[in-house]
Amino acid sequence: MAPSAHREGFTQTQTIPDASTTVVIVGAGPAGLMLAVNLTRFGIPIVLLDDRPTKTSTGKADGIQPKTIETLKQLRLADSLVRDGVRVYDISFWDSTTTHPLRRKGRQLHYPDHLVGASDPYILLAHQGMLEDVLISDLEARGVSVQRNSAFVSSSRGPEGTVDVMYEDRDHQGTSVKRVVRAEYLVGCDGARSRVREFIPDAGLVGEMTNASWGVLDGVIETDFPDLWSKVAVRTHTVGSILWIPRERNMTRLYVELSATAGERVDKGKATPEYVMARAKEAMKPFRMEWKSIEWFGNYVVGQRVARHFADPDLQVFIAGDAGHCHSALAAQGANTSMHDSFNLAWKLNLVSRGLASRSLLDTYESERRKIANDLIAFDAEHCAAFEAGDAQLAKNFDDNIRFIAGVGAEYGSGILTQSTSGDNNTSRGLRPGALVIPSKVTRYIDANPVDIQLDIPILGQFRMYFMVPDVAHAGVFLDAVCAVLVSQQSRISTVSRLARASYESHSRGWSKGDAYLVPERYTAVSDILTMAMVTASKRDKFELADLPLVLQRSRWTVYLDDVDRCIDKWMGGLSPTQAGIVLVRPDGYIGALGRWDVTEGLKAAQWVDEYFSFLSS
Amino acid sequence: MAPSAHREGFTQTQTIPDASTTVVIVGAGPAGLMLAVNLTRFGIPIVLLDDRPTKTSTGKADGIQPKTIETLKQLRLADSLVRDGVRVYDISFWDSTTTHPLRRKGRQLHYPDHLVGASDPYILLAHQGMLEDVLISDLEARGVSVQRNSAFVSSSRGPEGTVDVMYEDRDHQGTSVKRVVRAEYLVGCDGARSRVREFIPDAGLVGEMTNASWGVLDGVIETDFPDLWSKVAVRTHTVGSILWIPRERNMTRLYVELSATAGERVDKGKATPEYVMARAKEAMKPFRMEWKSIEWFGNYVVGQRVARHFADPDLQVFIAGDAGHCHSALAAQGANTSMHDSFNLAWKLNLVSRGLASRSLLDTYESERRKIANDLIAFDAEHCAAFEAGDAQLAKNFDDNIRFIAGVGAEYGSGILTQSTSGDNNTSRGLRPGALVIPSKVTRYIDANPVDIQLDIPILGQFRMYFMVPDVAHAGVFLDAVCAVLVSQQSRISTVSRLARASYESHSRGWSKGDAYLVPERYTAVSDILTMAMVTASKRDKFELADLPLVLQRSRWTVYLDDVDRCIDKWMGGLSPTQAGIVLVRPDGYIGALGRWDVTEGLKAAQWVDEYFSFLSS
Repeated sequence: MAPSAHREGFTQTQTIPDASTTVVIVGAGPAGLMLAVNLTRFGIPIVLLDDRPTKTSTGKADGIQPKTIETLKQLRLADSLVRDGVRVYDISFWDSTTTHPLRRKGRQLHYPDHLVGASDPYILLAHQGMLEDVLISDLEARGVSVQRNSAFVSSSRGPEGTVDVMYEDRDHQGTSVKRVVRAEYLVGCDGARSRVREFIPDAGLVGEMTNASWGVLDGVIETDFPDLWSKVAVRTHTVGSILWIPRERNMTRLYVELSATAGERVDKGKATPEYVMARAKEAMKPFRMEWKSIEWFGNYVVGQRVARHFADPDLQVFIAGDAGHCHSALAAQGANTSMHDSFNLAWKLNLVSRGLASRSLLDTYESERRKIANDLIAFDAEHCAAFEAGDAQLAKNFDDNIRFIAGVGAEYGSGILTQSTSGDNNTSRGLRPGALVIPSKVTRYIDANPVDIQLDIPILGQFRMYFMVPDVAHAGVFLDAVCAVLVSQQSRISTVSRLARASYESHSRGWSKGDAYLVPERYTAVSDILTMAMVTASKRDKFELADLPLVLQRSRWTVYLDDVDRCIDKWMGGLSPTQAGIVLVRPDGYIGALGRWDVTEGLKAAQWVDEYFSFLSS
Repeated sequence: MAPSAHREGFTQTQTIPDASTTVVIVGAGPAGLMLAVNLTRFGIPIVLLDDRPTKTSTGKADGIQPKTIETLKQLRLADSLVRDGVRVYDISFWDSTTTHPLRRKGRQLHYPDHLVGASDPYILLAHQGMLEDVLISDLEARGVSVQRNSAFVSSSRGPEGTVDVMYEDRDHQGTSVKRVVRAEYLVGCDGARSRVREFIPDAGLVGEMTNASWGVLDGVIETDFPDLWSKVAVRTHTVGSILWIPRERNMTRLYVELSATAGERVDKGKATPEYVMARAKEAMKPFRMEWKSIEWFGNYVVGQRVARHFADPDLQVFIAGDAGHCHSALAAQGANTSMHDSFNLAWKLNLVSRGLASRSLLDTYESERRKIANDLIAFDAEHCAAFEAGDAQLAKNFDDNIRFIAGVGAEYGSGILTQSTSGDNNTSRGLRPGALVIPSKVTRYIDANPVDIQLDIPILGQFRMYFMVPDVAHAGVFLDAVCAVLVSQQSRISTVSRLARASYESHSRGWSKGDAYLVPERYTAVSDILTMAMVTASKRDKFELADLPLVLQRSRWTVYLDDVDRCIDKWMGGLSPTQAGIVLVRPDGYIGALGRWDVTEGLKAAQWVDEYFSFLSS
């Protein structure tokens, strides 16, 4: 918007923005890129600012946890990372004491199936640049790129409820000019020293810095230490603890303890690669260690802190990732939690900025993600202490927290999005509102493809509703009743679906060329708000799609046969043949609500579904 | 090489080549590209000529069979195809008779595990251009590109046993100039009307053209036919047969029979898209069919023919793919068999042109691949006849040939590369020389990664040797004895390995940037000719890598635990604890030889191994 003729003669007091968008994201690390990728796919215009001239090329965060692998698979972005990264399946414990030289105390699976139940039960090691590459490529395939050399300066209130975001645009000569983008929302994904955080009132970090400090070294090590390709926790009685992490391209990351929590903080000048290598060599005696190359070195003092607020009172300025929480790197949580902050926020911003949900939906971002951040900090403090206390405690800490570490144990408290279960006869097994979907293998009815149900429906910003039906013939009356209500003019879901259709028609999702192979319209045939699905234990030759209500016929790509690993049982804790269940899954894969009814109670179930969606604007 | 001063005054009788290389490949379809990718990876210089201005953009071959998916996975090229293609798991049979309207006679898994045992038991549908893209990208990542607008003209004998390949180089204006590339080998992957074939004496096609003709139509169909997403064989009493194949991007390929084998050949002018659509609509009544779009149309007359020779007597000029064999498209074999021709030829050309194997190794190309071509033609004739004879026969033909259709049942006869089994107590179960490795899941010792053993060792042009060891402690004496002989100066394998090391050092393999993540040197630490490996049923905590012979310590990435699905039993048909087995696998994944010995017979086993490799030059 350039100054125009009719303004001549007036003193220019109003900011003239250089550009406008819906969401300004500050910081193109994992949190910022994950937010950008999701918003872009949902069709929300963004401006993504980063003060660095290039992406991360070495070091930094490198551990991708099982839940994050699942998320990347849902986004169809995991292939190259899984192919090129290192998969760490086990953990090995070593110690030395005054009476024993260094010895292996145990070696075990890192994520045992009976404790974790993840479909990718390993840590995927790939340096942060590989992850950023994948996300940046996806953005670029959708016509969006990172604005580099662009440092966030300030945020101020613009006209009509907008936010004016000022940044410093540096060119190659180093000269810079201040520019303003007018937006509806600003999200700071700008790390532990977040500048955006300063624009959220009372959002300072709460918590402690400790005296524990660690050196981190990535390089290729030549050694006769036999467990080089496991994650290894070493505790010595002489020079503290060491954590070994295998890396891509034959590298190993070492975390070397420089000073303990209780001890004195180490002199910063001592934390050199040479000092860290000498300490590691000393600790690992009698094993031989030589570095053939070093790619990255860093060191940090452990702090466990969480921001008091993740959003301003107007729900327009947010922080995500390290801007909201910091902790040690030992359990490889950082990039994971950060990306899941974004993953939580993105679909909510989409629905609210499209006018499809009330703004209060955005309130759940802070309540949900700040809880996880606090859980993380509490775990991390315990984990660091256990690391120092030795193997027995570390092993116990691992077993106690393994689901949380894997990311599959993160759970939200109850709220408008995570409602209590409906129906009698609930069992302790099965899904829980606020928790993630339990992975399960099913067979797609229409083409007999075996699929992972948690991955099959693509993320398009929509909810998912699964009918859980032991027997299609019995449940016909239930399916008919629920579907009839949900498509009737009176239902909220039907009204919002019409609004959503209009919204996506005028502001379409951000497609890439490759999406043509996904055929996304298969999953929005009934509604852009909700993909309907059914899981049944009936055999394929016992029914035809034409036997189902029209809504499910139009959802024919999401009719699944429960003929592989008892999905209905896993999810519902069992259902009798005269019962039917409904599982409502949020766009981020968390369970919103679930219920079970007698097959005669379809009307009741339909009302329950429509009530769940009361946060949608109709 | 331009004419030079000292030649002035002489009549120029000798051809002055414009370029020189090791292998000229004519044709950049699936066969030519697969050959180019393999040779380039092995480090063999190639020139790849194609007369077309661009790659295939639509239609043509589109069915990738289980064995080919495995091959693409071994080459790390399958990800995008598996993600974007359509996976067809089942086949459905329909018919109409004078007494019955059109009805489903049955629907079944296409590749049932008990019959096929493939790890990817589906047909992957992706149009030929997608496959070509993947192969071309891999070539380009290694610095090689297709020379387009370059039509093969002739081949003649050059000096010192070389071949002069003349081609016509057309520029954008359409003007063309003849050029000559001097090479050691020429391979025609130039399709059914191969020009290269004319330069192999007595290589004409043998076999019959039939009267059967089919129209082929790719497009998006709107229909209420319920099995649209299965492969469907329809036989009507009115208008012949139709084959439905689901395709990527919501398309369906229809093969529509225009005239039968026994009938009169259809008028070529009649084979229009309109005619084919009308015929399909008639056949599929009472189902509704409308085409929303059409991407490609083709028609062909079925011929079943094999070239008399696949190589010239000097073993310098070869043909691969459709140049060597043609048949119907109904069973989706074409591109698969063609790529496996190349896959067979590539590693042999590498070893011979590096001087690591005697030229007679190339003789096995024709004997092995012409057998498969003849098997294919025999199957195809039967398959086409069964297609007309109706469901019962077609279903039987399927069951009888399903392993062959999947590609996992292709087997080579015995020869220098496929030797008979050594040792007593052979069972009818397990691997057979000339057949493919049976897929099995094992756990890598060093990093506890679960892997598919048939995919884990990358293809680097080398053989694989697996020790099959029920108990490491018992077998120590056997492992020691075999390894001692194989690394001794006297063994052939050790001599050739030294030659190979020198050869690859002076002419290295063709790496891409992404290969750094594969760390290929892990698999050639002992020898560039042979990756040593071990599969043991001993538990991981019962032995350390340091307990193994040095050769296996240096092969530490290929020590596997048999703790998932009984690999030793699957491969060897069982071994007693006092026995050890050896499996020799060729670079193309076919079993070369296998044997079993008492653990005291290590010396005998070592001699047996060294004798197997007598085709190598030492």
